[in-house]
Amino acid sequence: MTTGDATNISAAPSERVEVPTRWINAALDVPFELQPPLAPTEDRPVVVEDFEWLWPRECLEIELRQGVYGEEREIPIPPDVLDGYKSYRPTPLFRARRLERALNTPAELWFKREDQNPGGSHKLNTALAQAKYAADQGIRTLVTDTGAGQWGTALAFACQRFGLDCVVFMVRKSFDEKPYRRYLMEMLGATVHSSPSELTEVGRRVRKEDPDSTGSLGMGMSEAIELVRTTEDHRLALGCMSYYAVMHQTVIGVETAQQIALAGRQPDVLIGCVGGGSNLMGFAGPYIASLAKTGKPRIVAAEPASVPCLTSGDFRYDWADYNRTTPRIAMYSLGSDFQPPPIHSGGLRYHGKTPLLSALVHEGFIEARPLDQRAVFEAGQLFFRTEGILPAPESAHAVLAAIDEARAAAEAEEERVIVSCLSGHGYLDLAGYADVLQFG
Amino acid sequence: MTTGDATNISAAPSERVEVPTRWINAALDVPFELQPPLAPTEDRPVVVEDFEWLWPRECLEIELRQGVYGEEREIPIPPDVLDGYKSYRPTPLFRARRLERALNTPAELWFKREDQNPGGSHKLNTALAQAKYAADQGIRTLVTDTGAGQWGTALAFACQRFGLDCVVFMVRKSFDEKPYRRYLMEMLGATVHSSPSELTEVGRRVRKEDPDSTGSLGMGMSEAIELVRTTEDHRLALGCMSYYAVMHQTVIGVETAQQIALAGRQPDVLIGCVGGGSNLMGFAGPYIASLAKTGKPRIVAAEPASVPCLTSGDFRYDWADYNRTTPRIAMYSLGSDFQPPPIHSGGLRYHGKTPLLSALVHEGFIEARPLDQRAVFEAGQLFFRTEGILPAPESAHAVLAAIDEARAAAEAEEERVIVSCLSGHGYLDLAGYADVLQFG
Repeated sequence: MTTGDATNISAAPSERVEVPTRWINAALDVPFELQPPLAPTEDRPVVVEDFEWLWPRECLEIELRQGVYGEEREIPIPPDVLDGYKSYRPTPLFRARRLERALNTPAELWFKREDQNPGGSHKLNTALAQAKYAADQGIRTLVTDTGAGQWGTALAFACQRFGLDCVVFMVRKSFDEKPYRRYLMEMLGATVHSSPSELTEVGRRVRKEDPDSTGSLGMGMSEAIELVRTTEDHRLALGCMSYYAVMHQTVIGVETAQQIALAGRQPDVLIGCVGGGSNLMGFAGPYIASLAKTGKPRIVAAEPASVPCLTSGDFRYDWADYNRTTPRIAMYSLGSDFQPPPIHSGGLRYHGKTPLLSALVHEGFIEARPLDQRAVFEAGQLFFRTEGILPAPESAHAVLAAIDEARAAAEAEEERVIVSCLSGHGYLDLAGYADVLQFG
Repeated sequence: MTTGDATNISAAPSERVEVPTRWINAALDVPFELQPPLAPTEDRPVVVEDFEWLWPRECLEIELRQGVYGEEREIPIPPDVLDGYKSYRPTPLFRARRLERALNTPAELWFKREDQNPGGSHKLNTALAQAKYAADQGIRTLVTDTGAGQWGTALAFACQRFGLDCVVFMVRKSFDEKPYRRYLMEMLGATVHSSPSELTEVGRRVRKEDPDSTGSLGMGMSEAIELVRTTEDHRLALGCMSYYAVMHQTVIGVETAQQIALAGRQPDVLIGCVGGGSNLMGFAGPYIASLAKTGKPRIVAAEPASVPCLTSGDFRYDWADYNRTTPRIAMYSLGSDFQPPPIHSGGLRYHGKTPLLSALVHEGFIEARPLDQRAVFEAGQLFFRTEGILPAPESAHAVLAAIDEARAAAEAEEERVIVSCLSGHGYLDLAGYADVLQFG
């Protein structure tokens, strides 16, 4: 169900599945040392004071203390945020039996549905928290970048709920091709700019050098940062790269763990698509402790073959934004000046991956899998035909990886419990489906 | 929740709310005589043999026997259809507390969510049944007309599930302006034509007379009928005008009655938007018996002020299609050759209203309310901002009527339980929102 209010009768979630009241600080469960963020141009760890101008203070503290240095494994969710969660959580975990039958597999295919959330994706789980921190601190405006627009929509929704203004730099390719997502943000009162824009120095510079630039998430982030730097009471919001976003998203994994246990199952494999990495890490984060101890469950990160960050990038210190303003982060990266190919999964065109995910891939705990765009869209279509649910192109990466796992299980004649995160819906990505699958 | 499989753990609907196993033949509860359908050009009631070439036999029998002449009040739902229902039902009934707070009303605003169904609307409830009847009869192809595309999408989904081909005549205005809904149908394997088309005599005639014709639902129906008449193993499917569609939709009302009773409430008012009338009559149908006996609950039909069928049309015998091929039906009508204004609620541009609804309005049992397009879209925006749910423009009519009721309750200082049907989502109608509310 989507609106899991206590008065939502059909679902009566309170009898069975509780909306989690704590996030998991999964970095503590990692069985090796994580490398701290470094100052942008000096070889020393970042301290809170370096970036108070940029982030809401609470975000910064999570990023720098709880993420890498903190000691609390479970972080209480603030009441206002929990109240927001309860308006749409718990989200359903369902078994895709018709898809299983279509694949003739002995495997079980389970999907955690974040696609029915307000804004259409998992992103609201962190947007609500970031807006709440900002409102408490007296910040007036949150500024961000967005690719396909799922993050921008979630932030716009959270900002209007907490009485904040919202400014979004939307990657030009998506701005032009996905006007509907822009309309959604504007309906929620956000101001949306096509990035690179004429609004910032970095935007103007890029447009001068390359008038046809279709933009990138890193570039949008640089524009957002510049606006924050030059305007009072503005702060940055980040949808995925940050550790705090990962932590907020663990609400997905904590819920899933309850639900799959209620079904009498234990997951053999957890699968998610990765843009920055927050949906996979939020979904799989609560399982890191078990993974570190027992090697189970396996965790699979599905990424586009054309943005092969985890599968062909380098693990190194790099900036999160194009303009090299952010802390340097130990992560897999294709380079902060990476110009993504114009694939349709706007949310997966980012050059880096969140440090926790990167480190776990680097140390061999998480498997990364590059996927071909056409096969991804075909998987999305099959899912729509069998289950009546249209996944976002981003989420269709997880669907394809799940299908591949189910086929491997059939080959090995193995019963396998495959649990995947369906991070968003694809109703606003139909032009992409039509283009790749050549109909319309 | 959307996918109400028995294994959908978060919702566990089986413990509280059952998916109904019977439809309600609400025509039997009407406290006056209903007028039977008449032959297209002779003054005699239609018999099954007149139209076996046009409809699946089972549909025709419901239309002619159970609807007006039948004696069974509860009709068992066939197992295949019930199995289909169980993949997405029960749908949630939820209380819009944030909207209530925004309106500062003592009224309770409840909404029955059919927007998360596969296909994005209530239409699947009848599409599954019609496809099942056709498949049982050995029919190869179902042909239909669609406005905004919600019905076409539902039928395409049901057809591929039951192994049938699907041909859709889509009103030209929507075909041109809502390509995404067309893509959805094509992803599901349907063939979609812009209506009026060059494929039929009636289409060619209209195009010749008026090359700029934006089409109408009645015209699309005439094209569908002609294709059925001239092709073997093809039959007509209808999304709303028919009595059988109304009957199938009572699954909504039967579920709602269970849910609202579980919440310890009785509805004072039931509200739905009306195109042909199937969502309102399916939603309110199970309450007709009570309405006839006690005058409660009130039932409100929300229609566009620019297609004022119930509020300014005549109650008379008229044809359901432009070309006057269908039975003549006793209904409110703006005339079968009505050329609807190009409003954005493509599903509400139909010239007539289903006979049961028409008769109940005519006899004073159901109130009709004409609503202004701009106010409708503003209501949709407010609903999105407060509840995070984007209603289809059609459904936003119900939202506005509910808001008006809540305001009236505030004025009267009355606690009022207002229950409305949210028939579909608006993600594919954002161009309409942008146009009317002037953003983007």
